[in-house]
Amino acid sequence: MPRSRKGRGAQLTEFAAIELLAKQLAQRGPGVHLGIGDDAALLERVAGKLVLSVDPSVEHTHFKRQWLTLEQLGAKSLQCAASDLAAMGARAVAALSALVLPKGVTEKELRAMGRGQAKAARSIGCVVVGGNIASGRDLSLTITVIGSAERPVGRKGAKTGDQLWLFGDVGLAGAGLRLLQRGKLRPRSPALLRCLEAWRAPKALVREGLLLPGRATAAIDVSDGLAADAGHIARASARRLVIQERLLARLLRDELRKAAEVLGVNPLDLALRGGEDYALLATGPAERKPRGARVIGRVEQGGGVVLEGAGRRAVELTGGFDHLAEA
Amino acid sequence: MPRSRKGRGAQLTEFAAIELLAKQLAQRGPGVHLGIGDDAALLERVAGKLVLSVDPSVEHTHFKRQWLTLEQLGAKSLQCAASDLAAMGARAVAALSALVLPKGVTEKELRAMGRGQAKAARSIGCVVVGGNIASGRDLSLTITVIGSAERPVGRKGAKTGDQLWLFGDVGLAGAGLRLLQRGKLRPRSPALLRCLEAWRAPKALVREGLLLPGRATAAIDVSDGLAADAGHIARASARRLVIQERLLARLLRDELRKAAEVLGVNPLDLALRGGEDYALLATGPAERKPRGARVIGRVEQGGGVVLEGAGRRAVELTGGFDHLAEA
Repeated sequence: MPRSRKGRGAQLTEFAAIELLAKQLAQRGPGVHLGIGDDAALLERVAGKLVLSVDPSVEHTHFKRQWLTLEQLGAKSLQCAASDLAAMGARAVAALSALVLPKGVTEKELRAMGRGQAKAARSIGCVVVGGNIASGRDLSLTITVIGSAERPVGRKGAKTGDQLWLFGDVGLAGAGLRLLQRGKLRPRSPALLRCLEAWRAPKALVREGLLLPGRATAAIDVSDGLAADAGHIARASARRLVIQERLLARLLRDELRKAAEVLGVNPLDLALRGGEDYALLATGPAERKPRGARVIGRVEQGGGVVLEGAGRRAVELTGGFDHLAEA
Repeated sequence: MPRSRKGRGAQLTEFAAIELLAKQLAQRGPGVHLGIGDDAALLERVAGKLVLSVDPSVEHTHFKRQWLTLEQLGAKSLQCAASDLAAMGARAVAALSALVLPKGVTEKELRAMGRGQAKAARSIGCVVVGGNIASGRDLSLTITVIGSAERPVGRKGAKTGDQLWLFGDVGLAGAGLRLLQRGKLRPRSPALLRCLEAWRAPKALVREGLLLPGRATAAIDVSDGLAADAGHIARASARRLVIQERLLARLLRDELRKAAEVLGVNPLDLALRGGEDYALLATGPAERKPRGARVIGRVEQGGGVVLEGAGRRAVELTGGFDHLAEA
């Protein structure tokens, strides 16, 4: 049960806000017994193992209000959380949404966030079954996702000789974030707009993730940046991940190159350091490569992540991006 | 996966913080496959229906840092969330902890919160299987709890002729909160200390909740106050809940009467309006009353909640506490 704190509340009362969201979100899906409006949500027995993750989006830390619409924010909060399920090869079943609303949030604004969450849930194939609303200084949306997987894929398991697979783009959202940080909220260039869109409206690669069980030996979603997230697989698997510059470079989109030029940075840097594209990175044997996976390197004995350059020595990427920045 | 935002971080790096908590919390329990440290947590098939709830504790809204220790805060955040499971007659299985840490939170402080959560999880019989850490202006702890129930009890279902049952105390935590709000952080009186303790260290009545299935027709945890929470049952069940002043009054503790005297308020007001004791309120037929349940009223045809006074007309409680305050 929400513990209300009156007096600090928004124009909306807490109960009115809950009712409003309940109407938008509580699509009684298959297996959902009690949606929003009771002490807890009820789900029928979930097939396979339960996969659980929680992801917060906090104002000033993860976003500024002027960087995206509230509908986009609602959708993004859910997509980011669902990306963790995608990385485990899990199917999304349900989500819980815990909102912290600052004073002055209006019904219209809350409705926009709810609409974004409902749309994202539909596109992911899950149902928002519950949540909570509290007041606080900074707007935040903390999403818990519940999924199921018969054969979940973790970060541990990469084998020597495996290929390194990438699904989706890297760098675009990172470029978009840097543009927003520099105040470029409404650029005219379609290339820059594409980067902003990548940051504002990411999509969890849930369908691609479902290709992983039985094929991938390890997987992760690229939320912190390709190099950092590759480092998590390397560490959990006690292997070295080699990213081949040549292979990665040819996957980079023209829009990324254009944004990198505007930002005065190397596009490869953005691809390696930029997070929040919610691409999927996985390892596995060549003969099991799923359709749509693009090879960007390999797994070797050893530890850490290296970038194997064209004609020059490999650059160590793990342990910080600073090495790369100095290269 | 956590999206780190460096530069705004605490003294602790995000990854160091996750590792620290992983060691404290990831007690690999029965059925827990992958605890903290992967994209998502994995749980074995859960028996019965899945029961899910999320509960945030936000600084300045739900607590001030000086009102309780960080170990108490960690424990309280988990107990509050688990109380929703208790109210559904569910067994707690697992929890996820999403923390927002302001700049300057130290390793020692984080460790204290983790210790509190771990102790609370043990006492409730569940495992903290995952979570997230982000930085932000205000400290917050958002706990998702996952439980199981063969025959969950909701808010809807109270029948005319049912008794109204209470487990646990009401009013003490509300008195404690009011004392803290007035700056009484270290009173000498054992009675006042007992009230502070009720607010600082509530216990989810999970064991009592497990007595409800097959006996109670409806249930709720008393987080917002007895009158308000009774209102939720009344509304969901389309019945009138009658609280008998005489029955409730004789359950009030001496400590509550003493605190009410210091605060200059009516102890009955505190019992009806004070939240956060995490008592359980349930309805059910007299012949099925569980051991430990105390009768405080009955269910009638109609709507709303009334207080039936000794020798005077019933006071309407729902729709606001103001009626009572004016009485």
